[in-house]
Amino acid sequence: MRELNVALIGYNFMGKAHSYAIGNAAFFFQHQVKPVKKVIVGRTESLLRKAAEEFGWQEYATDWKEVIGRDDIDLVCIATPTSSHKEIAIAAAKAGKHILCEKPLGMNAAEAKEMWEAANASGVIHMIGHNYRRVPAIALAKKLIDDGKIGDIYHFRGVYLQDWLSDEHAPMSWRLDKRIAGSGPHGDLNAHLIDLARYLVGDISQVIGMEKTFVTKRPKLADENQHRSASPIQLDDVTVDDTTSFLAKFNHGALGTFEASRMASGRKNHERIEINGSKGTLAFNFERMNELEYWSKDDDLEVQGFRTILATEEVHPYIHAWWPPGHALGYQNTFVNQFADFIQAIITKDQIQPNFYDGWMCNKVLDAVSKSIDTLTWEYIR
Amino acid sequence: MRELNVALIGYNFMGKAHSYAIGNAAFFFQHQVKPVKKVIVGRTESLLRKAAEEFGWQEYATDWKEVIGRDDIDLVCIATPTSSHKEIAIAAAKAGKHILCEKPLGMNAAEAKEMWEAANASGVIHMIGHNYRRVPAIALAKKLIDDGKIGDIYHFRGVYLQDWLSDEHAPMSWRLDKRIAGSGPHGDLNAHLIDLARYLVGDISQVIGMEKTFVTKRPKLADENQHRSASPIQLDDVTVDDTTSFLAKFNHGALGTFEASRMASGRKNHERIEINGSKGTLAFNFERMNELEYWSKDDDLEVQGFRTILATEEVHPYIHAWWPPGHALGYQNTFVNQFADFIQAIITKDQIQPNFYDGWMCNKVLDAVSKSIDTLTWEYIR
Amino acid sequence: MRELNVALIGYNFMGKAHSYAIGNAAFFFQHQVKPVKKVIVGRTESLLRKAAEEFGWQEYATDWKEVIGRDDIDLVCIATPTSSHKEIAIAAAKAGKHILCEKPLGMNAAEAKEMWEAANASGVIHMIGHNYRRVPAIALAKKLIDDGKIGDIYHFRGVYLQDWLSDEHAPMSWRLDKRIAGSGPHGDLNAHLIDLARYLVGDISQVIGMEKTFVTKRPKLADENQHRSASPIQLDDVTVDDTTSFLAKFNHGALGTFEASRMASGRKNHERIEINGSKGTLAFNFERMNELEYWSKDDDLEVQGFRTILATEEVHPYIHAWWPPGHALGYQNTFVNQFADFIQAIITKDQIQPNFYDGWMCNKVLDAVSKSIDTLTWEYIR
Amino acid sequence: MRELNVALIGYNFMGKAHSYAIGNAAFFFQHQVKPVKKVIVGRTESLLRKAAEEFGWQEYATDWKEVIGRDDIDLVCIATPTSSHKEIAIAAAKAGKHILCEKPLGMNAAEAKEMWEAANASGVIHMIGHNYRRVPAIALAKKLIDDGKIGDIYHFRGVYLQDWLSDEHAPMSWRLDKRIAGSGPHGDLNAHLIDLARYLVGDISQVIGMEKTFVTKRPKLADENQHRSASPIQLDDVTVDDTTSFLAKFNHGALGTFEASRMASGRKNHERIEINGSKGTLAFNFERMNELEYWSKDDDLEVQGFRTILATEEVHPYIHAWWPPGHALGYQNTFVNQFADFIQAIITKDQIQPNFYDGWMCNKVLDAVSKSIDTLTWEYIR
Repeated sequence: MRELNVALIGYNFMGKAHSYAIGNAAFFFQHQVKPVKKVIVGRTESLLRKAAEEFGWQEYATDWKEVIGRDDIDLVCIATPTSSHKEIAIAAAKAGKHILCEKPLGMNAAEAKEMWEAANASGVIHMIGHNYRRVPAIALAKKLIDDGKIGDIYHFRGVYLQDWLSDEHAPMSWRLDKRIAGSGPHGDLNAHLIDLARYLVGDISQVIGMEKTFVTKRPKLADENQHRSASPIQLDDVTVDDTTSFLAKFNHGALGTFEASRMASGRKNHERIEINGSKGTLAFNFERMNELEYWSKDDDLEVQGFRTILATEEVHPYIHAWWPPGHALGYQNTFVNQFADFIQAIITKDQIQPNFYDGWMCNKVLDAVSKSIDTLTWEYIR
Repeated sequence: MRELNVALIGYNFMGKAHSYAIGNAAFFFQHQVKPVKKVIVGRTESLLRKAAEEFGWQEYATDWKEVIGRDDIDLVCIATPTSSHKEIAIAAAKAGKHILCEKPLGMNAAEAKEMWEAANASGVIHMIGHNYRRVPAIALAKKLIDDGKIGDIYHFRGVYLQDWLSDEHAPMSWRLDKRIAGSGPHGDLNAHLIDLARYLVGDISQVIGMEKTFVTKRPKLADENQHRSASPIQLDDVTVDDTTSFLAKFNHGALGTFEASRMASGRKNHERIEINGSKGTLAFNFERMNELEYWSKDDDLEVQGFRTILATEEVHPYIHAWWPPGHALGYQNTFVNQFADFIQAIITKDQIQPNFYDGWMCNKVLDAVSKSIDTLTWEYIR
Repeated sequence: MRELNVALIGYNFMGKAHSYAIGNAAFFFQHQVKPVKKVIVGRTESLLRKAAEEFGWQEYATDWKEVIGRDDIDLVCIATPTSSHKEIAIAAAKAGKHILCEKPLGMNAAEAKEMWEAANASGVIHMIGHNYRRVPAIALAKKLIDDGKIGDIYHFRGVYLQDWLSDEHAPMSWRLDKRIAGSGPHGDLNAHLIDLARYLVGDISQVIGMEKTFVTKRPKLADENQHRSASPIQLDDVTVDDTTSFLAKFNHGALGTFEASRMASGRKNHERIEINGSKGTLAFNFERMNELEYWSKDDDLEVQGFRTILATEEVHPYIHAWWPPGHALGYQNTFVNQFADFIQAIITKDQIQPNFYDGWMCNKVLDAVSKSIDTLTWEYIR
Repeated sequence: MRELNVALIGYNFMGKAHSYAIGNAAFFFQHQVKPVKKVIVGRTESLLRKAAEEFGWQEYATDWKEVIGRDDIDLVCIATPTSSHKEIAIAAAKAGKHILCEKPLGMNAAEAKEMWEAANASGVIHMIGHNYRRVPAIALAKKLIDDGKIGDIYHFRGVYLQDWLSDEHAPMSWRLDKRIAGSGPHGDLNAHLIDLARYLVGDISQVIGMEKTFVTKRPKLADENQHRSASPIQLDDVTVDDTTSFLAKFNHGALGTFEASRMASGRKNHERIEINGSKGTLAFNFERMNELEYWSKDDDLEVQGFRTILATEEVHPYIHAWWPPGHALGYQNTFVNQFADFIQAIITKDQIQPNFYDGWMCNKVLDAVSKSIDTLTWEYIR
């Protein structure tokens, strides 16, 4: 069987998730090619060596440019902080490597556009890691909408709530530094909501937002990589938002509300969306990721009600590859589904979604929200 | 408008509930007769007088026999402890009064049979207070079953869980004295489950049970009626069950499990039933009494799921009399629905369900369970 | 016992709700005065007479001015469309009657201010009918916030969703006519959210909103009062919003999102709020009105989680007046609680909340949102 | 790193699950040894070869006896139908191989005892595949019980409901043939409930049960392995139960109810347990496997309520090995947790739980229930 050699840049949370997906795709999905965990790339050799061992990579390397230039690498996975995406992705595109890049694609729409142009010009298969499109329940929602089951869409309502910063003593990290992360929950969490909104409802035309940093100084850490044991020694400025919310108008007429926060006590990974249409409603909460709520006007009046679809049946997207009915999937499965689809696109040479174009569009909305916060008025997405 | 004079025997929890229903039936349901709160009856005059005032009764009296003999009384409501039901009900029947009696009907099936015979012979309208049949969601469940929506029934599963005795220091009361109450949660709570099972599934043919009194001695109270303030002075024997569970086989072939307990920490009024049939499932929990859960095999495969029907729409039973969609009903509404149906039966002279016959059948099942606990084997309901 | 004679203006949905509350307050709450359903007022005599009978009013009258002038009237309940509130309320205040007025108080803040000034000047007890403050679970939420249980508040999140207009063929009604209703769900539903936000979080300083009328023409009805049977004959212009959403900044620093819609398929009376603070979170959904969700950082780490408090225990607000643990209250109970508190305020001569001042403040927020929709920028509430 | 060579007997559903676990244990858990997927064993070579490839086994073989005799095999995983467990397990024990065997251990307690004796005598590490003990939420429940958080246990309540046979046209399979499967949901599903009951509550002393086969004949399949495409040609006798329920008394005094069914429409993998103690309650539903419900009498009265613990935090069992807070685990994770614990036991040479002794005890309860169905009276577990 033909092999597909992968280089992964990044070895933290996302690096682990992608390593897992690359290692398990062939177990669950039968493709004509087999992905190989060839080389993992990072800057800190001691940690990198450990990651390479644990995650089962054949090699590790500290110079991503050298790795991207290798002839034996077919595919590059970018799982680094946002600020480095552009340089790596454009280099990979120029080297003719297929690319799977984490979100948000760029620090802003201008960067994202360059990335899309480079990838598009090179002819490689490119994908952005909005893995939530690969949750079976979300893929089912897409199908039901495309089948007209909820009619014309009036409302999109999305919140992505976490609480790891609701404690004012929670320490500083690179995610709270605007130079590295670009933004706080706006780029991290609203990016997911915007991608789902575009996937399920369509493009957004206007937005207006607000943001706030409730805790502006946090304990500094001596070394980011030892943050669990290190004792905070001084305060550092938080330069990103703790929360960003916005109102949106969609091209085709629907209205949307969005909110992303890391200050919502008790909410761990509470990505909840609801879509109301003229014929029905769909709702999803990532904390119960195997379930899709559905209400249909087509039901008989006396038995109308929100039904909880356990999206773990053979008729549901991706489930044929997994387990019998009622056996829950977990977070990690979405990465396997995503990587399996990506491999399939490489095999068939068909461009896949969401790709760098989708990443660019998402960055545009993020930028427009940020601008509206400055201008205090509605901004158009053009 | 013709008036219907009511005598109510009992003025505690159930006395309050019936007083409320009698006072509000005409507000919500338009009948040709108007119930009048004529006289409330009890033994302790000081408390009785207070109840009469608060609950809006025209008179109060301490001699129920005298009241039952009055020509101006049309209807008798019996809301006393079980041990007194038989004598009162038979007297009322002989006096030609319509009767609404609390559950369980008798201390045992023999008593209940006598009561049914007396009521039947007298030609009065008689009803047993299984008010849960008048929860709109339950009435809807009955309709769906009758319409064949869940097909042939395989399983009935019922628990009625409370926790007011899970604290071993909770005090003694008449409800824990077998001479007065007849039994513990078996007669109090399983009676409700059995009635719902008979209503929704059908008659039971065989049972086997188990029971236990986990806390056999409890603080004695000087005066039952002052139980909130009185300090316990000595221990008293608990002579009823704390919990009783049983297995059941229905006449037509379904299997059932039943459990009633006052020792289930955190469960306040947790009457939950589930019925599985060849074509669907229904489930109900009294703590969310406005909701009925329904799963249908008739739904398209990809959108099958348990739907939560908010039984507060105009198309649902009883709701036309109440409020607009989505406005929750409460516990008290079931008593109004019940009393309104009772009045209607008196007007049309049609016997209503559940009546004393149903009460007798329920007592038969309760007895058979108790017997099976002694004989350690299955007992038939004949 | 001293009696308190009530005049009720309006006999539709709200008229029924208030009639119920007036008739049942003395049953559940023991006051030193007893409210009497003296006279109900409306314009269409045939319907009014029927309402008077069903709801148990001693008299009916078609001239509210005359009724307000009567010496034997102590209290006026205003349950008419918004456009008539001001004239009636000011007249009642001048006549020295205590006033309970439905929400929103005025067509706009200017009207509301006049009403508040008149009521304030007259020294009567005045109240606005934001009955949701009297849901036990909401009153409990208020207590927990006041006790510091959720710490500093970061977020308020409220949606009030209904679906009775999601069908584009749903007919015209006075509620869709701006001249009579003032606005659509904005004044009808956002008013409730704003009141709860002010009650639980505090005053709002800035807002920006958006609105939309998705269905601009609806079938006309020959006679509003016969709308169930009448066949639509022509189309009429809808002059109010179908949905209005807005972002808000609170005085003390919290951020809020609000959304009210009558186009949310499957949502019947879905008023859901969530409040995140530095130490915990509270959430409430009116469709499960007996429940309050609470998450506390004070819990041990391993058992932290959202708890569902069934607010039906003796320790919870208002429950002492009602039923034993676990016995659900319904929509109607909130009106009884409200009216009982109002009577108590009349007895003690203490001003109650929410009163006309709160109504005025709510109208200010509603107005600012509307203005922001025109100006496309943030508007201050001053 | 030292390697641990595994032989897996069986390649269907459980074979896939174990293959997955063996392949991923080292990714998530850092042990001193590394498991190797050495050889997979089955009878039908064509299917076996495919499984070996997909699941990543180095070799495949059709003679399990030969494989068990190989010197290079350290560990045997038994994932075959129940009827073959005994012979394989005893042979493996005699060959000195560590054993992980699927449940139920034997066709009956006699078989299980032999298996336990052989394993015990040989000194190997032996484990039974009750993977549900390795759901983080269940492991947390165990910890809370051991810490005394729910006090003395009064009740265990367990149902395990599926619906794949509720359709009377569902075809015959080996699982419905008593000679191969031993029993229906009794051995398949009640075995899980019994193991959890023993784990969380303690040993059972007496039981009485009932069972029923609602559909006694089902379409025969030409070839079990082609069942998806084969057209049924004639009817075959179902020789196992469709449902089995029983009452139980625990050694220390608690009461239990158990029910297993494959006829519960809409229930896919609905393993729900609830445990009520004197100080609290715990509840779990496998369809929401990341959640544990907990009610505590230690909470302040006004905020007592069932809390939903999302068992995906670092403080929860097994989570350190997986993902950040709020990232759901799936069914497959339990097999990895189980296999990782098994490896650890092999390294430390400590016997692990649940082992063959637990399997034997479980078989004893299963047998006693079956006997009670014949004798119609309570049977003791001795």
